[in-house]
Amino acid sequence: MKVARFKYEGQVTYGFVFGDRILDFSAVSRILGIDLPETVEKFIESELIAEVLTGKRKLEKASRNGIKLADVRLLAPLTDPPKIICLGWNYVGHVREGVSKIPEEPVVFMKPRTSIAGPYDDIEIPSDYTRMVDYEGELAFVIGKRGKRISKEDAYEYVFGYMVFNDVSARDLQFKDGQWTRGKSLDKFAPIGPWIITRDEIGDPHTLRLTTRVNGEIRQDSSTANMVFKVHDIIHILSKGMTFEPGDIVATGTPEGVGYFYKPEPKLLKHGDVVEISIERIGTIRNRFLFI
Amino acid sequence: MKVARFKYEGQVTYGFVFGDRILDFSAVSRILGIDLPETVEKFIESELIAEVLTGKRKLEKASRNGIKLADVRLLAPLTDPPKIICLGWNYVGHVREGVSKIPEEPVVFMKPRTSIAGPYDDIEIPSDYTRMVDYEGELAFVIGKRGKRISKEDAYEYVFGYMVFNDVSARDLQFKDGQWTRGKSLDKFAPIGPWIITRDEIGDPHTLRLTTRVNGEIRQDSSTANMVFKVHDIIHILSKGMTFEPGDIVATGTPEGVGYFYKPEPKLLKHGDVVEISIERIGTIRNRFLFI
Repeated sequence: MKVARFKYEGQVTYGFVFGDRILDFSAVSRILGIDLPETVEKFIESELIAEVLTGKRKLEKASRNGIKLADVRLLAPLTDPPKIICLGWNYVGHVREGVSKIPEEPVVFMKPRTSIAGPYDDIEIPSDYTRMVDYEGELAFVIGKRGKRISKEDAYEYVFGYMVFNDVSARDLQFKDGQWTRGKSLDKFAPIGPWIITRDEIGDPHTLRLTTRVNGEIRQDSSTANMVFKVHDIIHILSKGMTFEPGDIVATGTPEGVGYFYKPEPKLLKHGDVVEISIERIGTIRNRFLFI
Repeated sequence: MKVARFKYEGQVTYGFVFGDRILDFSAVSRILGIDLPETVEKFIESELIAEVLTGKRKLEKASRNGIKLADVRLLAPLTDPPKIICLGWNYVGHVREGVSKIPEEPVVFMKPRTSIAGPYDDIEIPSDYTRMVDYEGELAFVIGKRGKRISKEDAYEYVFGYMVFNDVSARDLQFKDGQWTRGKSLDKFAPIGPWIITRDEIGDPHTLRLTTRVNGEIRQDSSTANMVFKVHDIIHILSKGMTFEPGDIVATGTPEGVGYFYKPEPKLLKHGDVVEISIERIGTIRNRFLFI
């Protein structure tokens, strides 16, 4: 199932995508005789996804009369996650290009909710604050239920679904500080989407091709198979000390090909560049970067 | 005004402290003929603090019949801040003991809301995950209204109030990772309180003595005068790229005397240690640390 937040005829709501149609949550509630909450965050927390999945066939049929996907504007699927955790150095190729070391345990930092942007939003960059802005194409997963000290075996029970994530980074701030947080936390520096695809549709999340294009030129082309810490490792290790909550977003790190480490010279983003990140079986996010 | 969250006769609520008494928000609503929201987060966002301050004398009188402070258990004043930003290397003495450099701009990291603990809570530490736990006594401020690109002159208009903050740190994880986030993000690694004191009662926040005691022994004894980046600098610089939201917590860094850098040898926390952090005119938080 694809859970999407969108704007249609001036109203912001969420729903479920079937092919080129969307059924909004109130239509789904009516069709299935259940009472879905009004936000994606509350829907995830309600664990009603199980009932929606049970009614999938019924919904597919009804979706013929749904809203046309072409008539909506897709928005960030989540706007108020309890936390956004991001991994660094989690692809061998990226560790090599950065002349770093493969970490023994996941290296993480966080982004604030104010950094979230929609899958097709323009990203405005304050040019008096940073001039060195870069993309990082990543697979993100969304937590579906509260848990701590989660075993690797049980880890996927805690995954609600997956999204495409751009861990936009102000390299000047990031490397000046040493701590990466400030350079990663600017407004709109975390475009996500285009929807959350539920885990039942993905199965093993480590078989997916991930590509990043800038103005059509391929910059990153890897597979989630190349992650150092897999989704189950990340959940297991981090939950030793920290509780995961429904709606938490975890971005799993980026492969090689980021602009900063490009050879023979860096290829950082310029005014008007369009960054397009695609993950097989999930979808594509596409954002234009504007220095203002 | 002191805004406190507390448990009384089995109910969790919030209210305002006057001497040894508390008036809960519903009593205040009744007395002032206003309609205060049900959580501290929503109260801050409502900006109704102005009306509560106007009615202060009336409330002081009424507080004689309020709940006895001795009969409540004070809880963390906030449980769902949009973000928790923490500064590193923000006191000259701490920069020196850590043999680091005074940063040109604030160095920050974040903690998740799951790290929040009450002012008198026990802090349970998973001893199979970290053995090197340390205190960091800090002044935290709470943001009162949404803002971006805030000038130093206007900065205090965006401050709702102040709290005591313990930036509890798992030194083994923190230094192994290089990025500080993981070692700072364990559950209950951010005790806060004992209440939020509104900015009108503090005035200049850079004149306050800050002390940290472990089992009664003084470990940190400094003044907020010694901050590298003052509250208005922090708001000004960080808001160049990032929007502040009502309820955001910003911890302003710790002075010298943390356990890890103690001479002649480190004094990290042991099972059963009680850490007490006091900031003049705000109050004291006191937490017992238990390795489990």
